[in-house]
Amino acid sequence: MKRLRVGILGATGLVGQRFIQLLDEHPQFEITALAASDRSEAKPFAEVCSWKLPTPIPERFRSLNVEPCRPLLDCDLVFSGMPSSIAGEIEEEFAKAGYPVISNSSNHRMDNDVPLLVPEINSSHLELIGVQKRSRKWERGFIVTNPNCTTVALVLALAPLADAFGLEAVSVVTMQALSGAGYPGVASLDAIDNVVPYIDGEEPKVETEPQKILGKFTNGLIEHADFRVSAQCHRVNVTDGHTEAVAVKLKKKATREALIEAMQQFRGEPQKLGLYSAPKRPVIVLGENNRPQPRLDRDLEGGMATVVGRVREDNILDFKFTLLGHNTIRGAAGAAILNAELLVAKALL
Amino acid sequence: MKRLRVGILGATGLVGQRFIQLLDEHPQFEITALAASDRSEAKPFAEVCSWKLPTPIPERFRSLNVEPCRPLLDCDLVFSGMPSSIAGEIEEEFAKAGYPVISNSSNHRMDNDVPLLVPEINSSHLELIGVQKRSRKWERGFIVTNPNCTTVALVLALAPLADAFGLEAVSVVTMQALSGAGYPGVASLDAIDNVVPYIDGEEPKVETEPQKILGKFTNGLIEHADFRVSAQCHRVNVTDGHTEAVAVKLKKKATREALIEAMQQFRGEPQKLGLYSAPKRPVIVLGENNRPQPRLDRDLEGGMATVVGRVREDNILDFKFTLLGHNTIRGAAGAAILNAELLVAKALL
Amino acid sequence: MKRLRVGILGATGLVGQRFIQLLDEHPQFEITALAASDRSEAKPFAEVCSWKLPTPIPERFRSLNVEPCRPLLDCDLVFSGMPSSIAGEIEEEFAKAGYPVISNSSNHRMDNDVPLLVPEINSSHLELIGVQKRSRKWERGFIVTNPNCTTVALVLALAPLADAFGLEAVSVVTMQALSGAGYPGVASLDAIDNVVPYIDGEEPKVETEPQKILGKFTNGLIEHADFRVSAQCHRVNVTDGHTEAVAVKLKKKATREALIEAMQQFRGEPQKLGLYSAPKRPVIVLGENNRPQPRLDRDLEGGMATVVGRVREDNILDFKFTLLGHNTIRGAAGAAILNAELLVAKALL
Amino acid sequence: MKRLRVGILGATGLVGQRFIQLLDEHPQFEITALAASDRSEAKPFAEVCSWKLPTPIPERFRSLNVEPCRPLLDCDLVFSGMPSSIAGEIEEEFAKAGYPVISNSSNHRMDNDVPLLVPEINSSHLELIGVQKRSRKWERGFIVTNPNCTTVALVLALAPLADAFGLEAVSVVTMQALSGAGYPGVASLDAIDNVVPYIDGEEPKVETEPQKILGKFTNGLIEHADFRVSAQCHRVNVTDGHTEAVAVKLKKKATREALIEAMQQFRGEPQKLGLYSAPKRPVIVLGENNRPQPRLDRDLEGGMATVVGRVREDNILDFKFTLLGHNTIRGAAGAAILNAELLVAKALL
Repeated sequence: MKRLRVGILGATGLVGQRFIQLLDEHPQFEITALAASDRSEAKPFAEVCSWKLPTPIPERFRSLNVEPCRPLLDCDLVFSGMPSSIAGEIEEEFAKAGYPVISNSSNHRMDNDVPLLVPEINSSHLELIGVQKRSRKWERGFIVTNPNCTTVALVLALAPLADAFGLEAVSVVTMQALSGAGYPGVASLDAIDNVVPYIDGEEPKVETEPQKILGKFTNGLIEHADFRVSAQCHRVNVTDGHTEAVAVKLKKKATREALIEAMQQFRGEPQKLGLYSAPKRPVIVLGENNRPQPRLDRDLEGGMATVVGRVREDNILDFKFTLLGHNTIRGAAGAAILNAELLVAKALL
Repeated sequence: MKRLRVGILGATGLVGQRFIQLLDEHPQFEITALAASDRSEAKPFAEVCSWKLPTPIPERFRSLNVEPCRPLLDCDLVFSGMPSSIAGEIEEEFAKAGYPVISNSSNHRMDNDVPLLVPEINSSHLELIGVQKRSRKWERGFIVTNPNCTTVALVLALAPLADAFGLEAVSVVTMQALSGAGYPGVASLDAIDNVVPYIDGEEPKVETEPQKILGKFTNGLIEHADFRVSAQCHRVNVTDGHTEAVAVKLKKKATREALIEAMQQFRGEPQKLGLYSAPKRPVIVLGENNRPQPRLDRDLEGGMATVVGRVREDNILDFKFTLLGHNTIRGAAGAAILNAELLVAKALL
Repeated sequence: MKRLRVGILGATGLVGQRFIQLLDEHPQFEITALAASDRSEAKPFAEVCSWKLPTPIPERFRSLNVEPCRPLLDCDLVFSGMPSSIAGEIEEEFAKAGYPVISNSSNHRMDNDVPLLVPEINSSHLELIGVQKRSRKWERGFIVTNPNCTTVALVLALAPLADAFGLEAVSVVTMQALSGAGYPGVASLDAIDNVVPYIDGEEPKVETEPQKILGKFTNGLIEHADFRVSAQCHRVNVTDGHTEAVAVKLKKKATREALIEAMQQFRGEPQKLGLYSAPKRPVIVLGENNRPQPRLDRDLEGGMATVVGRVREDNILDFKFTLLGHNTIRGAAGAAILNAELLVAKALL
Repeated sequence: MKRLRVGILGATGLVGQRFIQLLDEHPQFEITALAASDRSEAKPFAEVCSWKLPTPIPERFRSLNVEPCRPLLDCDLVFSGMPSSIAGEIEEEFAKAGYPVISNSSNHRMDNDVPLLVPEINSSHLELIGVQKRSRKWERGFIVTNPNCTTVALVLALAPLADAFGLEAVSVVTMQALSGAGYPGVASLDAIDNVVPYIDGEEPKVETEPQKILGKFTNGLIEHADFRVSAQCHRVNVTDGHTEAVAVKLKKKATREALIEAMQQFRGEPQKLGLYSAPKRPVIVLGENNRPQPRLDRDLEGGMATVVGRVREDNILDFKFTLLGHNTIRGAAGAAILNAELLVAKALL
């Protein structure tokens, strides 16, 4: 099979680096263009990128020139890992110029005609692509987004509960990794021996994205699901892996065992279609009482699963548990790549 | 004024070290005996203690012999910072032998006849001392306890809300410091680049102690307050200072401003009596949206206050906020010392 | 090819865990026995091991029983990752009972008749095995050791310099990872926001092992090389990867370029023989001025290489540079496995 | 005594914050002006400063306006904690305008006519002030500097050795704290689980400043001392406190005991004059084999001493030891303040 040629927007950032790492040996995609927002002229990737992953820059990208983030780029579609301060307009430009844009940025996530896609949960939302093209008068290009890093780990655990028992309210307190803020991101003096109880813009995203993701496509629109989410977000001294302390109120009675069973058995389109980056188990429930832990569990299923532990009854809402998701893999680049794989499988790319 | 002569049970542990540090220049107490549970024979403190505080061992205690934790000790009362695995019986022995025991250990906190004292909140519970002496047939000795480190920081913030608006439910997710586990305590490989979503025995304490503390002394008993607490406890990579993400459901309507005002204005007996270790402001509310932070705020008021930030409405319960307390000062040794100061002021020592 | 059946002594420790992880899919070895020093009776591995690696326990070992560290074990040879407090005698027992013992423990490293093997450097020292068997009257069994974790990373960089220029003196200041102390090992309160300038027993090892490793086998003995080593060892807040600041005095004049060239070109028996765990480049020299860094470079060549950076002239000795080695891979389990692979290639197993 | 009115240049940076903290209750100086390089217009300090010290901003400075770093400022002298990228010219401007400039910046340290002052060591270098005023034609103003943070901790330990035994060579490998890089400074992803073996511009300073400091004032010039220094500098995950592994070659024979004695007994002008910020013991030698440690020992003598441990013979040079200095107190603001106190005592202010 011929591989699709892809460009990376925001290639020098942490999410861009993950795109490059994860696509390095991908059977369906081949990186042919690297672009970064701060480039006015082309320079070799190894020279301009402050590479921060523990695996080295794949050899063939070291000398690939990083170009400005403007069409045209030499590729069939683009993955966007740009900061949201600039992603909005640039992504539209690319879509308008005919490129499918698979975006990790927050700018268009809540647009009425843009899918906020989690392939295990809402592949039906892909219908929005047609709506979007028509409304925006784009011929080939379109935008598909994945959720915020905290949201995606959360909704993977919520989806089976929503299916089986219905959701009424979700309380989530997060302990988020440093890599979520990019590079240089969080100053070391704010991280060491510390917790920062605030992440700019994070709580509103976590409180609104899940309802769109778990919503229904009806009459050309997504009808958002009707449960409430309350989020309290903290930055902790962890490189990768967001930990979330969750409590849920359900619509139907459930037992602890039924809850665990629902999460363990949860499978979606990526698992049925055998997509390349799909985790075998989107939600893993660990039995040990001191798990999940970021250092030990964030790389399960290649960083593409939500890892749950300590499921137990709650005396205010109904149940509580801890979950962990890899914020730059399933929470960013990996999510976008899985989205693209679904689009390929659905012949939308 | 003649200083009372005090002994420290568990003198070599982290809490014992805080007792020594905080009592070093105390106007009312003078350390005359050091005891540790693992001592079968007396040895100089500096030899047997793995001192872990950033201020050095006060010179005059370096050569003071550490004795076994058994009566008689050469002192008028004892502070206990022993591990709960052994504190229960030893504290009873000391009380029986005539020593007032001011304990930080969990063993007797929930005993019907033992005050679980937070001087700002429930000095009326000291009436239990008489009950206790009668029921246990102790003549001079008795036991007074302070709460768990997580609880005390929490109840200081809850008390003014309970007074002003009534409490119905409290949800708390904690990010607790390493020093809370003692020394050697948490292994470094469990702390670095990690969060551990479990602390043995912690959640049940946090879910039950607040109701006793905020309860009423009636007919020789404490009638526990009737709100529910749900706790999810995590260990994070911080030396000192427990951070807690709190949400509360109140009995009466309140505004954000009224909530903050109630916390800011909160004063109790220690403030009225001008006790030596009393924080001027037991609850400090910070206005910056990224505070409190352990590294920056744990030492406010000498580590004796609860520092609150990010007070805002919650869409599941009524309000949410973050709080921070110094776990080995107000959460342990400092709490016990304040208890002792109150006892002195009430002529109970 | 039929795989050799191996037993792991000290299977539940951090080094034992690395053995299990690295041997999981090894083409030449198959783990058939797990033993731990603290086991008086057999129990499933997953129950008794506090697994601390970021990849999960390989499924088939979860229920394998961990046995006491005593012969007989159901295997052809044993890898030993036992603590040195007990390894000495137990390893001799196993060798006496006919098992080749490939040991990471320090006990027998400096024995006159035991090879202290670094396959790239001194495969000729394997001649000692015959000497050893004769002198100890062991028929099939024998002991082969690998160096201390700090030493092995160091000597890989020194060997090419010794070859090309001769060594007169080596000064090394280390910044060592927490995993080097095992689990629980270093207390988190000693690691966070801290450096500990002492590691028990470490400096003498680093100051004496290199001379044996770089020595010559002559007349049934190793003639130690005659350079001096001075070591100052520190524990820093890093999970894996020892950083070493090195300065060397050479016997011949050299240029910076010649030094780098010698290290880059260095190859040994494992590379010639194409051993399974052999790094392609035993010494990697990075050109960036802020490398090597543990978080970014420790896993190069699967953790089997020494990574060097900042090679420059020194104004006291001749040259100085920084190096990094993965302390539980090339510094422990990986070193022992490479030793065993060499023994297989030399038909000594 | 009337207090001198001082201005702080670079008031919003980490060093500026230390100036404010340390001068808050100083008997001889009173802060009357705050200036920062990035201010084009005056704004209240609390609004523009990202305060990072664990004690709060002294109340009376919260609303003091921060002005641009240009003369005239309402004060008698200025302390400069500006970044070296801009300090050079601005300091000259202030000196020219008549202000004594007590600088922590590196720009003028090696100027022939500027004292690089460590009051315990080279108060005779103050003679340079006259030289400087004459050569630069400044009437009242002048510049006095203190060394780099790594240098000052080092020379305090070297000075007694130079006095007693003479110095031939000094090798130093540093493990430096994050606060040395200012704020935001080191990115958290470069600090966590990591060591960075490079600090821009640091090694040349450490290799040249000690010889000036330990030099002699002769004929209007400083004759630099003639020993060699070799430095290898690393950034480690520590908030405050630089650790240095030192080895020295001496001109005369010495014993370990004599070395320790020389350091312990070392006293200088600040101790004789009883200067306010002077440590009682400029060099403290600890006997425990695992000390000094930053978390435990950096605040000894209020952060104004060099703390030494593990003094022992070296088999390449003569002796080796570990030392620790507080990099933002004795290594920066505290050093400058002690310099100013000496100037007051010498009637030079």
